[in-house]
Amino acid sequence: MPAISSPGKTRGFIVPIGGAEDRSGGRLILRRFLRLCGHNPSIAIIPTASRKEDTGKLYQDLFRDLSSANSEVLNFTDRDQCDSPASLDFLERCDGVFITGGNQLRLSTTIGGTPVAKMLRRRNADGMPIGGTSAGAAIMPEHMIASGDEGATPRARMAQLAPGLGLSNKIMVDQHFRQRDRMGRLLSAIALNPFAVALGIDEDTAAFIGPDNIVEVVGSGTVTFIDPFDMRQSSVAEAEDGDVLQLTNLHLHVLKHGGRFNLDTRQPLPELGV
Amino acid sequence: MPAISSPGKTRGFIVPIGGAEDRSGGRLILRRFLRLCGHNPSIAIIPTASRKEDTGKLYQDLFRDLSSANSEVLNFTDRDQCDSPASLDFLERCDGVFITGGNQLRLSTTIGGTPVAKMLRRRNADGMPIGGTSAGAAIMPEHMIASGDEGATPRARMAQLAPGLGLSNKIMVDQHFRQRDRMGRLLSAIALNPFAVALGIDEDTAAFIGPDNIVEVVGSGTVTFIDPFDMRQSSVAEAEDGDVLQLTNLHLHVLKHGGRFNLDTRQPLPELGV
Repeated sequence: MPAISSPGKTRGFIVPIGGAEDRSGGRLILRRFLRLCGHNPSIAIIPTASRKEDTGKLYQDLFRDLSSANSEVLNFTDRDQCDSPASLDFLERCDGVFITGGNQLRLSTTIGGTPVAKMLRRRNADGMPIGGTSAGAAIMPEHMIASGDEGATPRARMAQLAPGLGLSNKIMVDQHFRQRDRMGRLLSAIALNPFAVALGIDEDTAAFIGPDNIVEVVGSGTVTFIDPFDMRQSSVAEAEDGDVLQLTNLHLHVLKHGGRFNLDTRQPLPELGV
Repeated sequence: MPAISSPGKTRGFIVPIGGAEDRSGGRLILRRFLRLCGHNPSIAIIPTASRKEDTGKLYQDLFRDLSSANSEVLNFTDRDQCDSPASLDFLERCDGVFITGGNQLRLSTTIGGTPVAKMLRRRNADGMPIGGTSAGAAIMPEHMIASGDEGATPRARMAQLAPGLGLSNKIMVDQHFRQRDRMGRLLSAIALNPFAVALGIDEDTAAFIGPDNIVEVVGSGTVTFIDPFDMRQSSVAEAEDGDVLQLTNLHLHVLKHGGRFNLDTRQPLPELGV
């Protein structure tokens, strides 16, 4: 379950990005994320998923260019660092958190269950936006797609789940969706967790999930929503490793920039006038 | 529209196969197709889609092994050959027709609209089964997916349609579905033809479509059914070449061996007891 909001507060935006967001042109997604965080916001960047040394610095420079953001890189590389008073103090005061790409299992096994994870959950519940790209998007839900195989149709054990950060239990997230052909993997994940709405997010595309649980799609690709609320037949329980899976009565929506979906009513909404 | 059945007759089975069906092991799909055609059936093999010289012979040998079938290869390579009395005479008398893989546009532009195509439509309407693999599957519906691009999410002009044989107007067919990651292409085709149910058929998998419009899945993969009966938002009309497409309220079913779907009620059916 997500953390409970304090009295009088509402949850902040949750912004999973499908990876490879535009970082040199209009930078629409990053710009919009920063705008949610306020004027000259102070942003904590968590590059734990990445193996590259300069990932944190790259976003620090970008955020400075885009909004004079005063950001700090918090590179937790082992669990011991996840109770550092200086880091927790910055996370307590900052206006937004951005989680970079890399390996989501490294991210979740480093910060999961630590004071850093608790702080992120509490601050988001009380209104602070959290954005993340690729692995940083995958980790946001309660149940995270940790790894899997490519392909259009589902098979048993094609997707492996692991605990995520738990900012929402209404969604699951897969990223690089079109680019890595992950429909089968998303369907296999839905077979394991037929409660959440599964979001397959293309590169350079984001799902801006508001406090009202309305998702708005931003970017150049699409977000594929697979909703299992009405699922009838599922062969996942009796399937053996690699068996093809039978799944019926799923609802499917493909939304592009401006498209909106209500996670509570589980219905797409009309586009806002532009 | 499919040809109208003669008084007292009902349509024969339509059997699209997703390509690469098992030809050396249990050969379940081919065996089952031949069984539909009767005892020691006489089969017309149409290898027009293929560029390989021995494609017709390969199936002739297979069918002889499997059921002592007495088959004939009718290799129409240009439209002039499609009113040959000898070929039409064999097609008038045979118990089943099998159309091989290759290039579906070569197939459709060679036989489409000729006496051969008319004969196939009439014989199927009066009860004769027609099977086909890969290109031979794609050509069966009224609207054929002629070509397209790979990927999980739809884009404008990602799928090109062309006239098919028109054995059914209730379906569209894509083949090698999982192996060539054709979800986006199938969704793009549905955007152009939101009347039919789109079938994405994996390799070594077939949809046996009965005279009652009940589809049964046979083989080692799955058939993905995308049903647009309830589709609400579609951006296809205003999209430019390559634009991502928005499509909402599609219904999705993934069925494996034994799974059944009713094309009239547009509902999956319980599996038959085994």
